[in-house]
Amino acid sequence: LGGGSVIDSAKIMALSIASGYDGWEIMNHKAKPTASLPVVCVLTLAATGTEMNGAAVVQDHQTGKKIGYVTDLAFPVESFLDPAFTVSVPKNYTAYGIVDLIAHALEAYFGEGEPPVIDQITFDIIKDAMQWGPKLLNDLDNVELRANIMLDATLALNGLTRYGKKNGDWAVHGLGHEISLLFDTAHGATLSIGYIAWLQLQKDRIPERIIKLGENVFGVHTVDETIAALRKFFQSINSPVQLSEDGIGIDQRQKIIDQMHKNGVSGMHHSLSQQDRETIVDFML
Amino acid sequence: LGGGSVIDSAKIMALSIASGYDGWEIMNHKAKPTASLPVVCVLTLAATGTEMNGAAVVQDHQTGKKIGYVTDLAFPVESFLDPAFTVSVPKNYTAYGIVDLIAHALEAYFGEGEPPVIDQITFDIIKDAMQWGPKLLNDLDNVELRANIMLDATLALNGLTRYGKKNGDWAVHGLGHEISLLFDTAHGATLSIGYIAWLQLQKDRIPERIIKLGENVFGVHTVDETIAALRKFFQSINSPVQLSEDGIGIDQRQKIIDQMHKNGVSGMHHSLSQQDRETIVDFML
Repeated sequence: LGGGSVIDSAKIMALSIASGYDGWEIMNHKAKPTASLPVVCVLTLAATGTEMNGAAVVQDHQTGKKIGYVTDLAFPVESFLDPAFTVSVPKNYTAYGIVDLIAHALEAYFGEGEPPVIDQITFDIIKDAMQWGPKLLNDLDNVELRANIMLDATLALNGLTRYGKKNGDWAVHGLGHEISLLFDTAHGATLSIGYIAWLQLQKDRIPERIIKLGENVFGVHTVDETIAALRKFFQSINSPVQLSEDGIGIDQRQKIIDQMHKNGVSGMHHSLSQQDRETIVDFML
Repeated sequence: LGGGSVIDSAKIMALSIASGYDGWEIMNHKAKPTASLPVVCVLTLAATGTEMNGAAVVQDHQTGKKIGYVTDLAFPVESFLDPAFTVSVPKNYTAYGIVDLIAHALEAYFGEGEPPVIDQITFDIIKDAMQWGPKLLNDLDNVELRANIMLDATLALNGLTRYGKKNGDWAVHGLGHEISLLFDTAHGATLSIGYIAWLQLQKDRIPERIIKLGENVFGVHTVDETIAALRKFFQSINSPVQLSEDGIGIDQRQKIIDQMHKNGVSGMHHSLSQQDRETIVDFML
């Protein structure tokens, strides 16, 4: 009963109890569980997609790591998605949920493999979230709008956007986790900041993919227009696009770079070099 | 190892063996299985979607019925989808597979409930099949085009197009099964004939839904233009749109009506009256 962190923790606990291994041993791949207690989800935040996948992300304050773990064993046996359970989510976290689902779709889109129908479906999920999200933010009690966003969030990370592909990218989620660890910044907020910076880094490397996104989602035709349009959307729902908006200044530059380096933030398809990490931090500041 | 009928038969046999019930008792809901042997699919025909759902349709020549059965127990434990396994499918059956997957998408679209993102995804599946299908028919050995159609076929009936909806419609599949039973017409061929007739029957009852389909898939703006565009597409891939193209004439009219009546062809959302069945047969002839 909860949002992503709560359900993800429940998944790891269910694996831990059923297998007799310590949860962190499982998360760190030191022990491989072969069983899980059944997990039943009642979702109270539309964002994570955890309600329909076998993934869990948990934060360890002791070691300063926020890591993910994926296993079919952790797939919930049932998930109850009633949009009425999300009407009490405040405006800013509703917006962060919208950013999170869009970021999930983008991680898949920038992964390896480009099946045409899956690209189109991914654009549909992003466009649907962009269509109904701002309306919802002005009408937070509207259960129908909540339902649309809830469905988008599930579709963005239930495996659909990865069909016919080898992997997603996930560099932005990786760096977002580091920002959250360092400054307790909301997960969605780190993603709106991170994706704009990541696109700026990648703009000369994968212009065709960025332009295809721009043409299909925003009706624009260049890399710069695409990045500007996404940035404008995030700003329109009051999710930050620079770290400075959250009070994080240039004095934190080295700390962020070191943290990213320590935990090896990279990405599964478009790997980041150490120089890339420095560049992306400069774009975020 | 096979197409829809083969895999569907395997599903029912697996239920029958594991539960000890006769397969037809299960199909006719006289016995409810509580277990199944694991079913592993190697798909050799892109059309049915059975590789990723718990449904099975089997034809009983003795009783003159072609009926469906759905249970989570029949969900395959693994399905191997290698488009190279479908390159030997001849041109006409490749076309019928494309019709079948489009018909699956339409059955979902005309069902109960209209979540916006699912409508859009359904349109994308249809558009993708319409984009790559004709190219494939002129290049039957092209594995990449085979892969696109294979993915479309799975997406059209793996539950995705039904998310957030109460049901699909399935009247056209129902009447198509009766035509196949009577005349051994290929399943896909009955669907191209059936959908054009069904849309003509429904055109004054659900014009908004038909126009939404036309605008998003064909870029047209009226009910008649939508039906004409779909008819033209089916004709372009040489799938019949009238029974007469398969040599079935007006002399068979009463026989078809009686058969539809006997097996209660109706539809789950837009039910058909006896008068509707007669009208639809007249449209098909």
